[in-house]
Amino acid sequence: MSKLFMFEKPLGMRDTLPFLYEIKKSVRQAMTSEIEKWGYEFIETPTLEYYETVGSASAIADHQLFKLLDQQGHTLVLRPDMTAPIARLAASRLYQQGNPLRLAYNASVFRAQQREGGRPAEFEQMGVECIGDGTVAADAEVISLMIATLQQAGLQHFTVAVGHIGYVNALFLEILGNEERANVLRRFLYEKNYVGYREHVKSLPLSSIDQQRLLHLLDLRGDETAIHEARELVHTEEGVNAIEELHELWNALQLYEVADFVKMDMTLVSHMSYYTGILFEVYAENIGFPLGNGGRYDELLEKFARKAPATGFGIRLDRLIEALGEMETEAKIECIIFSQERFGEAIQLANEKRREGKRVVLQHISGIQDIDAYSKRYQHITYLLGHTGKGE
Amino acid sequence: MSKLFMFEKPLGMRDTLPFLYEIKKSVRQAMTSEIEKWGYEFIETPTLEYYETVGSASAIADHQLFKLLDQQGHTLVLRPDMTAPIARLAASRLYQQGNPLRLAYNASVFRAQQREGGRPAEFEQMGVECIGDGTVAADAEVISLMIATLQQAGLQHFTVAVGHIGYVNALFLEILGNEERANVLRRFLYEKNYVGYREHVKSLPLSSIDQQRLLHLLDLRGDETAIHEARELVHTEEGVNAIEELHELWNALQLYEVADFVKMDMTLVSHMSYYTGILFEVYAENIGFPLGNGGRYDELLEKFARKAPATGFGIRLDRLIEALGEMETEAKIECIIFSQERFGEAIQLANEKRREGKRVVLQHISGIQDIDAYSKRYQHITYLLGHTGKGE
Repeated sequence: MSKLFMFEKPLGMRDTLPFLYEIKKSVRQAMTSEIEKWGYEFIETPTLEYYETVGSASAIADHQLFKLLDQQGHTLVLRPDMTAPIARLAASRLYQQGNPLRLAYNASVFRAQQREGGRPAEFEQMGVECIGDGTVAADAEVISLMIATLQQAGLQHFTVAVGHIGYVNALFLEILGNEERANVLRRFLYEKNYVGYREHVKSLPLSSIDQQRLLHLLDLRGDETAIHEARELVHTEEGVNAIEELHELWNALQLYEVADFVKMDMTLVSHMSYYTGILFEVYAENIGFPLGNGGRYDELLEKFARKAPATGFGIRLDRLIEALGEMETEAKIECIIFSQERFGEAIQLANEKRREGKRVVLQHISGIQDIDAYSKRYQHITYLLGHTGKGE
Repeated sequence: MSKLFMFEKPLGMRDTLPFLYEIKKSVRQAMTSEIEKWGYEFIETPTLEYYETVGSASAIADHQLFKLLDQQGHTLVLRPDMTAPIARLAASRLYQQGNPLRLAYNASVFRAQQREGGRPAEFEQMGVECIGDGTVAADAEVISLMIATLQQAGLQHFTVAVGHIGYVNALFLEILGNEERANVLRRFLYEKNYVGYREHVKSLPLSSIDQQRLLHLLDLRGDETAIHEARELVHTEEGVNAIEELHELWNALQLYEVADFVKMDMTLVSHMSYYTGILFEVYAENIGFPLGNGGRYDELLEKFARKAPATGFGIRLDRLIEALGEMETEAKIECIIFSQERFGEAIQLANEKRREGKRVVLQHISGIQDIDAYSKRYQHITYLLGHTGKGE
């Protein structure tokens, strides 16, 4: 264990300096305002939750959890996502309100990092959960709201990849016959390792027709025609139902006038557990990771003893801001530098400017060590010094 | 160790439901806007810090820290305050900007609770730090800004108690002769146990004149005259300097036109370490705990190898909101309930209302289980159902 340098921060932990804060703030405000207009209500949950309840209900791998013991001997976790805490809330204190519930959040979540790889261990997410509504209309709303939110934040070029985990599961089960084999293929899709997927499919003891069906899956991306093609590959009720949901979703997204942002991707798996139906990821042109993702999770609420369908999305603010690129949001702050004799006058001037909505630093000249360096920080400085001197 | 009920939250951890969230949001916005107008710039720091650096520099007792081990074997803490992380930041990444630095924050801080006593283990603080300015003008600014911030939040009746730890230390050292004895009396003041203080003073082997001086301290509260009376009790340079600073402060607070909110309190200790000069606490009429506090801490930056004077304040949002009492901020959300055939029409209507700035839930009727219960949640509902039915 090495000795720490005094300024060091834990692995993956970051500071937000004023310049980035201003950007975050304007992005947050734009997103929050859109989410509120769609009738979603913001809530907050604690940073710490019990491992036994929320921790184990969350979809995040155990080794990524920050764990600690409380003084009663229970294990606590720093919340690794917001979906599980909101499920707890929806199943308990908000249960009497009746469903559907439309909730939103803007919060830091935590994922322990094994080694420094540029990944943050704490990052801010904004998202929504629509709980208790099993209709495809709810899936369409959540996707459309995500698109509207990104647009409000200023993002212009992005694509929402939409798939259906029920379709993938039905196809795999129909062809492979058991979950164990299906899991191997799902993992290749989850890792987006299509070369590995192809090789594995070819090694399977299947008819060449079935191998072709599995390989064809990889091509099912694009507009509505991908759904039609996907229909040809399945014969089970589960598979056909999934296709019908996707058709219905596509129609709804057209009504919302957002279909241009959407690309069907029948290979989408997005997560190894958790999602149960329609699911999606959003990509910007210049970023290798998804900015956000979401989907239907109809089995999570059961873990809190209230069976209810649910769907939602979460957007990562750090990645969104990266995708937005250069933004001009630097705060314009002016400065009044005064000497003791003109303290009162300086206060009056500052009050006046602040009433006009300006951001004004009021600085006693004796508090400055290096006046040259200090004065460079402000675009506009008013000096109120000495008996009569008055100027800029 | 008892088995957990599935909805339980860790000791002292709380959810914020939509109604309270709206109140918090409006209070935060009012406060943030005022702080920004005074030229302070907001920053964020990580939730987790190293115990060895920030954890040990903070003024919070060890048993109140939430601690965990990272995968490298270092102890981490959930930040127990924001002053120490900001000192780290000011001493490292912001150092090249030159002083004074005016920084602000709005963040959760964490204090482990021994047992359930209604105290939160996580609470939100908003505050500022003015770093590198040793003038009394900076103390006056910080107090005046705190007052302006509370007023903007809507608080009308409150009092800022102002003292000077340097005065208390000088008086005690002059009369008692050593720090050990001074510590005992300081602790009585810190605990606001004035009965205990009196009894202890009377038990000390001091002249009755010195006993009277120590007892007189308890009466030094009120307006500027308390400072004059306090001057009579000390003779050392440290004591006289402290008095001069308080006079200067009082004059500055009059220039800021906030002296009516201020009550001198020479017994104020506020914390057992940390503060080095002028310090203060703010009280509302109806709340037993201070809503916020602050003061000068000229020795903290040294722990990060950059000697610099500093002063700041922090306000607890939970207590401020309690002090504000009943607030009308309930979100007005309306609802459109539609059936499949009129989905497109419903989207158009929702878009229209949202463009007008309204908050509108769009709900497919098939997603509602109990229409009577659901419709009670909204003041205004538009039904778009069936072929021709159109109404309210």
